Parts: sequence; C-alpha cells; structure tokens
Amino acid sequence: MSEIGDSIYGLAQKLFPICRSITGDGLRKTLRIIQEEIPSLKTFEVPSGEKVFDWEVPKEWNIKDAYIIDPQGNKIVDFSESNLHVLGYSIPVDQTIVLEELQKHLHSLPEQPNAIPYVTSYYEERWGFCLPHSQREALQPGDYQVLIDSELKAGSLTYGEVLIPGEMEEEIFLSTYICHPSMANNELSGPTVVAFLVKWLLSQKRRYSYRIVFIPETIGSLVYLSRNMEEMQKKIIAGYNVTCVGDDRAYSFLPSRQADTLADKAAKHVLKYLHPEYEEYSYLDRGSDERQYCSPGIDLPVASVMRTKYGVFPEYHTSLDNLDLITPAGLLGAYEVLQKCIEVIETNEHVKVTVLGEPQLGKRGLYPTVGTKKSSQRVRDMMNLIAYADGTRSLLEIAEKIQVPMWHLLPTVKKLKEEGLLA
Amino acid sequence: MSEIGDSIYGLAQKLFPICRSITGDGLRKTLRIIQEEIPSLKTFEVPSGEKVFDWEVPKEWNIKDAYIIDPQGNKIVDFSESNLHVLGYSIPVDQTIVLEELQKHLHSLPEQPNAIPYVTSYYEERWGFCLPHSQREALQPGDYQVLIDSELKAGSLTYGEVLIPGEMEEEIFLSTYICHPSMANNELSGPTVVAFLVKWLLSQKRRYSYRIVFIPETIGSLVYLSRNMEEMQKKIIAGYNVTCVGDDRAYSFLPSRQADTLADKAAKHVLKYLHPEYEEYSYLDRGSDERQYCSPGIDLPVASVMRTKYGVFPEYHTSLDNLDLITPAGLLGAYEVLQKCIEVIETNEHVKVTVLGEPQLGKRGLYPTVGTKKSSQRVRDMMNLIAYADGTRSLLEIAEKIQVPMWHLLPTVKKLKEEGLLA
Amino acid sequence: MSEIGDSIYGLAQKLFPICRSITGDGLRKTLRIIQEEIPSLKTFEVPSGEKVFDWEVPKEWNIKDAYIIDPQGNKIVDFSESNLHVLGYSIPVDQTIVLEELQKHLHSLPEQPNAIPYVTSYYEERWGFCLPHSQREALQPGDYQVLIDSELKAGSLTYGEVLIPGEMEEEIFLSTYICHPSMANNELSGPTVVAFLVKWLLSQKRRYSYRIVFIPETIGSLVYLSRNMEEMQKKIIAGYNVTCVGDDRAYSFLPSRQADTLADKAAKHVLKYLHPEYEEYSYLDRGSDERQYCSPGIDLPVASVMRTKYGVFPEYHTSLDNLDLITPAGLLGAYEVLQKCIEVIETNEHVKVTVLGEPQLGKRGLYPTVGTKKSSQRVRDMMNLIAYADGTRSLLEIAEKIQVPMWHLLPTVKKLKEEGLLA
Repeated sequence: MSEIGDSIYGLAQKLFPICRSITGDGLRKTLRIIQEEIPSLKTFEVPSGEKVFDWEVPKEWNIKDAYIIDPQGNKIVDFSESNLHVLGYSIPVDQTIVLEELQKHLHSLPEQPNAIPYVTSYYEERWGFCLPHSQREALQPGDYQVLIDSELKAGSLTYGEVLIPGEMEEEIFLSTYICHPSMANNELSGPTVVAFLVKWLLSQKRRYSYRIVFIPETIGSLVYLSRNMEEMQKKIIAGYNVTCVGDDRAYSFLPSRQADTLADKAAKHVLKYLHPEYEEYSYLDRGSDERQYCSPGIDLPVASVMRTKYGVFPEYHTSLDNLDLITPAGLLGAYEVLQKCIEVIETNEHVKVTVLGEPQLGKRGLYPTVGTKKSSQRVRDMMNLIAYADGTRSLLEIAEKIQVPMWHLLPTVKKLKEEGLLA
Repeated sequence: MSEIGDSIYGLAQKLFPICRSITGDGLRKTLRIIQEEIPSLKTFEVPSGEKVFDWEVPKEWNIKDAYIIDPQGNKIVDFSESNLHVLGYSIPVDQTIVLEELQKHLHSLPEQPNAIPYVTSYYEERWGFCLPHSQREALQPGDYQVLIDSELKAGSLTYGEVLIPGEMEEEIFLSTYICHPSMANNELSGPTVVAFLVKWLLSQKRRYSYRIVFIPETIGSLVYLSRNMEEMQKKIIAGYNVTCVGDDRAYSFLPSRQADTLADKAAKHVLKYLHPEYEEYSYLDRGSDERQYCSPGIDLPVASVMRTKYGVFPEYHTSLDNLDLITPAGLLGAYEVLQKCIEVIETNEHVKVTVLGEPQLGKRGLYPTVGTKKSSQRVRDMMNLIAYADGTRSLLEIAEKIQVPMWHLLPTVKKLKEEGLLA
Repeated sequence: MSEIGDSIYGLAQKLFPICRSITGDGLRKTLRIIQEEIPSLKTFEVPSGEKVFDWEVPKEWNIKDAYIIDPQGNKIVDFSESNLHVLGYSIPVDQTIVLEELQKHLHSLPEQPNAIPYVTSYYEERWGFCLPHSQREALQPGDYQVLIDSELKAGSLTYGEVLIPGEMEEEIFLSTYICHPSMANNELSGPTVVAFLVKWLLSQKRRYSYRIVFIPETIGSLVYLSRNMEEMQKKIIAGYNVTCVGDDRAYSFLPSRQADTLADKAAKHVLKYLHPEYEEYSYLDRGSDERQYCSPGIDLPVASVMRTKYGVFPEYHTSLDNLDLITPAGLLGAYEVLQKCIEVIETNEHVKVTVLGEPQLGKRGLYPTVGTKKSSQRVRDMMNLIAYADGTRSLLEIAEKIQVPMWHLLPTVKKLKEEGLLA
C-alpha cells in the first residue's frame, strides 16, 4: 500500500518544477502530465474576458525568464533557479534602476530571512521580485538591471474535469487546484492525491457518480461554478476541497459553511476513528475554494480534509514548502482518509429491521446459544445496530450513536440482510 | 414504613427456593404465591410452538432431580442443594462418563472460584452442570455418574397480568420477570417490589389505569407484546421495567430508547432529588425487556429504575446473588422511588395561570403583606410556578425549570386552584 | 462624555430628598422635575379603585410628618431626617404607648445595625417606624409618643409616559420606576438614566418608535399594561426594565422570561464585548417589572441590564443605598450600555449578498491587490460578513457567528451597500 504513497510523491516530483499560475502554459503542462495518469481527464479553455459572476477571466500570463543583475554584474535573483522569485502575473520589464527604486518592487519576509515568499498580483498590473530577506538586506546601492520576460495578453484559462458515472446520478465531488508554482504541500499535494483517488475510483464498483476538477483556485472555481452550478446543486451530495494533504505532521478538518452536511459528518466520523488527535477548524478559518462552493446561493456541501492546514504551517507560501516538506507517508495518509470518507458515503444507507422485537439471532447462528455473564463486543454491536435500525437513521448516524466506526458494521449489515432481517 | 421493606423481603424469601425458568411449574408456583398478595393477578398459558414475531414459544421444561456422583460414590453436585447447579433447560441424561467427557458439560468461573454460575441454553438442546471452579479443579480422573431427571416437551409458557382501571384509559405500565431460579437481586427483587407496588396502587385513587405483567424475560415480553402491542401503543404513556431493585449499594437509571419520554423525565427528576448520586446509564447499556418494549416499530416509553444494575455487581448471575445481597432497606428504597415516579406522573398536568400579570397574592393571604428585603423560598417557588404556568408546560417541566422537586409544588398548586388562579 | 454622567448624577441629587411611594404627591413632584429635562413627558392619573387585572389601584397616600418622642422627651426618630423612618403607606397615628407596644411597630436589621431598613405595607393597613437596630436596642422602657401625620384616601396613581415616533411603528420600550423614597441605586438611578436616554433619543434619527414609561413598580406596570397591552404586544420588538443602574461595582444581565428575544440577544452581545466580566442572572432571579411584562399571556420581550442587581448589593433597600453609592461613572456606564443596545437594535437588519460566489473586492479597492501570507483582520471580518450574509441571518446573528462586535461591521455594511454588493 505504501507503494501508492511513493507513486503520489513521484507525480509531485514530476510536476514540481513547472511554473504554474491561474492561467498559462504551466497549467496546461500540469494537466497534460496528470492526463498520463488519468486519460479520461478532459481539459477546457475559457477565454479571457468571459464574465463569471462578479469576476471576469483575466488575461493569460506566461513567462520565459527573469532576473536581477547587481551593480557588480552578478545575476543575483534568477527565475530559472526558482519560479517563486518572480511576483506572479508580473508585467514585462527591462530596465536599469537604482536600488531605492528597485526596493519598491521587492518582497521578502523579515521573520523568515532565508525563505523566498510567494507573492502574486493577478488583478492589478505590477511587476516585482521575491527574495530571501537576508539577501535583500545585503544589497548595495547602485544600478540594477532588471528583466522580466513575461507576456500578459488575451488568451484563456485552463482547467481539467473528470466525470465518472456510477449507478446513481447523485455525485460526490472532489476539487483541487493547480495554480501554485513550485510549492509542495500547498499545492501539489492536492492534485497528486486526487489523481490517485481518481485511479482508485475508476477501479471500484460505484453507487454514486463522481465529478472531479483540477482548476486554478478562486477564479477557477468561479468559472467552473458559473458553467455547472445548477447541475452541481442538483446532483452533489458531498464534496471535498483537497488541499494541503502532503506533510505528515497533522490531520485537519475544516467544515462546510452549513457544517453538518454529509461531507462534514463522514469526514469527522472517519477522522475521529482513524486520527482522533486531528485538528478541527471552523468555517471562519477557511481560505480555499470552499469560499466559492459554500457561498450564499451556491451552498454546496463541500468540506476540507487536510494534513497541516494552509496558513498554519510555517513554510506556507514560501520556498520552504518544497519537496522535503511532503512525504510519501503524508500523502498516503490523506489519500486513505479521503478514500475512507468516500467509502463511508458509498456504503451509507438508511436501514430498518424487518421484524418486531429483537430478531432471534441464535437460530441463525448469530448469537451465542449458551447464555453466560457476558456477550462479546461484536454481538453487542450487532444488537445495538438492530436496536437503532428504525428506518429514520442512516448507518453513519447509527455508528455515531452506538460509538463504533461505521465500517465495522458493514459485515454485520451484510449478514443481517442475507438473513432478511434488515432492509 | 420499613414494615413494607420487611414484607417485600419476606415474599422474596418465600419465592427464593423455587426452580424457575422461562417455562414450567416453577413459574406457575411463583405466580400462585404472588396471587396470595394480589388476588386479581390473572395467569395465562401460551402453548409451545406459538409464533411470536421472529420467535416461537419453546417446549416446556421441568426438572425433578439432578446430580453428579464421583468415582468414590460421593454425590458432589446436587440440584437439591442449589438449582443453579443445572444448566437451565438441560435435556435429560443418565449415564456414566469419564472426567474428560464430563468436563465438556461443566461450567464454572475461574475468576470467582467459589461461585456457582447461572447458565442456560433455551434454544439449543444441551445438558450441563454448573459448579464452583474450586470444586471443578479438585475433580479426579475416573467414572462419573450423571443424572438429570428433566423433561422438555410441548406444554406452555406461563405469565401473569394485572389490569387496574383508573379514571382514564391511558396506562402506566410495569413489567418484571420471574424466570430466574434461586437468585435474589436479579431476580426476585423485581417481582416482589412490583407485587407490593400493585397492593399500594389498589389502595390509591388513580387518574391513570395500570398494566402490570409478571413474565419470563425476552420470550415473555415478546409473547405479551405479540398479543397486546396495539393496545399498549395506544394506551401506555409511561412504563418501567423493574429489575435489580433489591440491594442497597446504588441507584441506577437506564433510559428508554427514545430517552426523553415521560417515563424517562419522571424517573430522572425523582432520582435527582431523592438520590442525586444515582448512576445514569445509556440505552447502549441495556440488557432486559426494554430490548423488546423499545425496539423499532414497538417504541414503547419504557425505562428502568434500578438499585445496582445487572452486569455491574460482581455477584450477578451467580449463586452469590442470594438473599444476603438484598435487604429490606434496599427493596424499600426502590419501591419508594418507583412510587414517587408514579406519583409524579399521576399528579403531572399542564397548568395555566388564569389572570394577566402576577395575581395579587397578598389579598388572599398567600404573600407577606409587609415588603421587606427577602421573601421566603416557599413564596419564591410559588411565584416561579406562576411565572412559568403559561399552559405550554407541564408541572414536571416547570419543576425542572424552577429547580424544585415537583412534589413540593403540589400543595401550592392545590391552593392556587382553590383561589381560581390556576387552571 | 463624562459630562453626561455628572448631569445624570445631578438629577438624582435633585430627586433624592422627595418622599415617593406608589401613589401620592412625591410621585407628582418627581415627574415634574423630570419634565424639566423632557418636556414631552405626559403624566396620567388613574383613580383609586380602578381594576387592573387581578389588582386594583390603592388609595392615595401622603405624609407630612412623623416622629417618635422618647420618655425623656427627645425626638429620637424623625421623618424629616429620613423618609425611610416611616413604614411606607403607614396609616395616621397619634398616641402615647409603652415600649413593649411600640416594639410591635418597629422594623430594624440586626445584621446591619446602623442601617434604616426600607419597609412598606401597601395592601394591609398598618403603621410603623424603621430605625437602625443599634438605636432600637438602646430604647429604655417607658412611655413613647408616636405621631404619623399621614393621609390614606381615595385619590389617584400617577405615572409618566413619553412616546417618540420613528420611521416605523415597531417600538423599543423602556420602563423605569419612581416609587422608592430616598434611595439611590434602587431607585433613582433608573429614572435618571432613562431621562437622559430619552434626551439622547430625541436628538437621533430613529428607525424605530419609542415608548418610555416612568411608573410605580408592580401596580404601575399593571396599570400601564391594563391600558396599553394590546398595542404593546403588537408594536414592541424589544424592551428593557431600567433599574439599579447607578453604582460602579458590576454589570448585570437578567433575561426576559423567553430568554432569547431581540432584547436579550442585543444586551448580551453588547455586554460580552463592552463588559465581558458581567454577571448573568436567570429569570428565576427576577424581581422587578419584568414580572408583569413577561408574565404568561403578556409575554413582552423585556430584559434588564443593570449595574449591581437589586437584592445582591448589601445596601439594598436600606438607608445605606444613598447618593454615595452611585457615581457619575456608574450611571454613565449603564447609560452607554443601554445606548449601545438601542443602537444595535436600530442598526440590526437582515443582509444578503447580491452576487453568487465571493464578490471581487479587489477591483473596488476593498481588498489588498497583492496576495501575501496574511490578510488583515478587517478584511477577514468583511469576508466573513459576506460569507454569512445569506438573507437568513441578521447582522446581530452574523456578528455573533463571526465573533466581532456588531458595531464593527457597520462601516463595512455601508461600503458594501454603496457598492451594490449587499441588500
């Protein structure tokens, strides 16, 4: 099984060097590599200028090169070494300026002097460089040559979608984002874990249908919603925004706005039993595409299961969030929790005992025929399941009530159904 | 009042030696002795083989004698010394077997080496003996003569019922079981306490009608339900399963499946004020006839008020649960709590103040006419009662709200009704 | 602003010497002085004998003089020194009696030997004197001359009312009482703080209309309700009984009977942020006119915001509750809390975001255009407001949900409305 952790990590390694943003060729390259894992992934291009609710699709951004050459002629900041060095969506520039002027275009983190910060300016035209604060402080007065060989022009926004049909029209939804440049936990962990969840789903018998999207954050979810909202509202019974699922320091849960949807209940149930020490956040701590999916009038049941949450880990949105931060075990852990959430939803159903009074389990070999002081926990669980299988409760609700992992009840449910005792 | 404790204990002493099971003459003898206390107790015979929901009434079991004679000719296990020595519902046997073979038919408790365990096999034909583990370990190899002079054949299951009419059709229900051989807390305490509650009820003015049953556990409640379910569902407003009400170590409460019925609320209110240290269990800890009464589709409001709960006290289901374990004070305590529960339900009603604003209690002599710094607690309680008597709340709910025992309010309710202030 | 505290205190000083009761000229004088602050205050006279629900308006009581002269001819208890010396509503008396007989008419507090207690007997005809316990213990046997020059006869009960129209018919209600003789926290703080709240309200643009009453406690609120109940039930959306608002030791909250009305929610929200250490009482601790306003069938949403609650502070209902106990700062604190409660209710409304998905705040200059690691708390609050502005929640509910004082949201609400983003 840990083979899967390695495979997810391998995919993250392959995708890491690409310079991604909310539009551009980095996105296309990323989706092409994911398509090698999931040939059924379809990609879509949405033209710049298209209105999406209160927003519009921005110009497409691409970049070839960028650097700063210091007064001594040394290339001191170089896009080819780290794509974080360039402020995302920087307009082109090619000039020589004094340090004082350059400073207005520099971004660094005094409290993390060795990290390159991740900074963007999608909706206000700017140019800028990001660099370690220690390096910035060493800059000497003089003339600096700055070059950003970028292009910002009408083009399109790219996203990917996989639709997997199941027995029913109702859907489980997974959303992850592919707009971050070379960072690992936030965010290559999401798309790589989701890619492998899709591979697993394709191999399974499915009750529900699945809708999985690989999009740029915010503008991408808005674009996707503007084209699919009504269908999504009709079909989606539970969804997860998959982000920050790669390190192995913590498990985290962030609820949907409604906080008590099936997605919330399943995830909390799974985490309670698999990782009882998990961190539970409030919707007030949100910060990713649930902001769109759960917004008033859209109201989709989308929660987040994470390892260490965005904004919480110190390497967040810096060059320190690199391939050393995520691990095969970390990725695998999140993969397994999401898998379990899906299994819980897939196997959840309302159950009702078919007889009045307790069924006679002894005659069916399901109950010890010698009455002694104690019955086993397994028998207790079966009796408790029967006691609450009144047709008003789902298996998940019964499992919560009788304080066992829902998946422990499944073999019993199967047996009781075979005996005609459960409907 | 402690006279009643002695009388209940005396009845338990009289019933103790009888070998009871879920069918048979032990049941009939037991009911006949209870009839001496309650002549209106009716008995019913339900033929073997009658279908009851998912079950059927088993063959009737009776036993005359049983023993083991050791290789030296000593009678080492003797039914006439303790009816627990025979596995309940043992089929007849009369043979000589070697120790190794005998062992397969022996039951003992290593962790309680001096206790004879209580073991049964109602629905799988077996024979067996139960004995102290210390005695079992001393057995020497050799030939053992075993005899069980029992009979298992078509007959009937016996139960008893008392119906006591009140002013209203609605019923309060008491159920207790009479299928355990010589054990005291579990279970002669239940039928003996109930017998004396019935005597008391017959002497009272009653608003509600009462349905009281003395039955074998599980199969008996199923039988009774199969014959009376619809009427019970229509009439019963609250019920208690009466078991383990004889020792004086603890008070315990086990809720109905719905957990918030009138039976639950009344019992918790009574215990909170009379025995605030009581143990509160969950329906997951159930183990008696509430398993049938509260099952899905039957859904009767039946809770349990106990002294030390079955399964919790160390003597449970062994020969150590004898007449030394229960006491007149223990039985009386449970009797009084159940009495109080019944009184609470009998006197509970929705009340509504008849005037707008606070009534002027001073002119009716109900309020101090000199206004000073403090009004007494009694006056506070009266004012609080009036403040919440808005017609939407019952007295029990008001008592909970204003934090006094409901029975403390009754004289005030009477006075206010006399003054025309409460309806 | 502390000028207002001084002004309120000044009004209390002016009113302090007047001998008030539930009827009589003291009431009229008090209302006349308040009219100097609020000319629009109207007064009403309700004749003795008028039926009000279960009560009737009592005879009118007035008093000119009262004293006790001891056997040595010294005037030892003198109404002109403290109007608390006379039991409220004392019938006239003029006689010489022995100490033993006098004792039956004396009231004192052994546990507070230097305080004159406040005692009344409105509905049972009596006479009496109140004095420090230390003085009472020093009384020598002998003949005492007692005089109470009072008058108890058909007259009327006086109360005051201010109605302030707003944009809407719905009303906010303030009630305070003016029936206590020379005591300060309980009760000149209430009418004086309310007088200045009325002055402030008259200077404001008001969405809601206001109904403010200055009444004798209990009988006055009953009288007012008997004449205005239906209109009040139709119009009042929130109300406060204003009492004990003058000392500076504590803030206190006592809920309405329903406990979750707008009045309750606004007051708890305000106190949580302005005075988080406030004491929260239960409706079981009530003791003022909410007893009438919240009674069954009347059910008005009236809560109490107080400084130290009646019955809780040691000086309560004694001569120690004097002008030293209340302070300009204490009065001002309560004034400001009630002001804030009113502002919260005035500005509370249901809000709904007008676009699907998050609005693009950047293009409107409401959001930082450079995406960095952290957004400010102000931006978080705006985003949280938008996230919960789904039309089902009021601003107050949203503020509670997103854990900020509601008044912090108002500038944001204004800006978002200007942008057409909020309706």
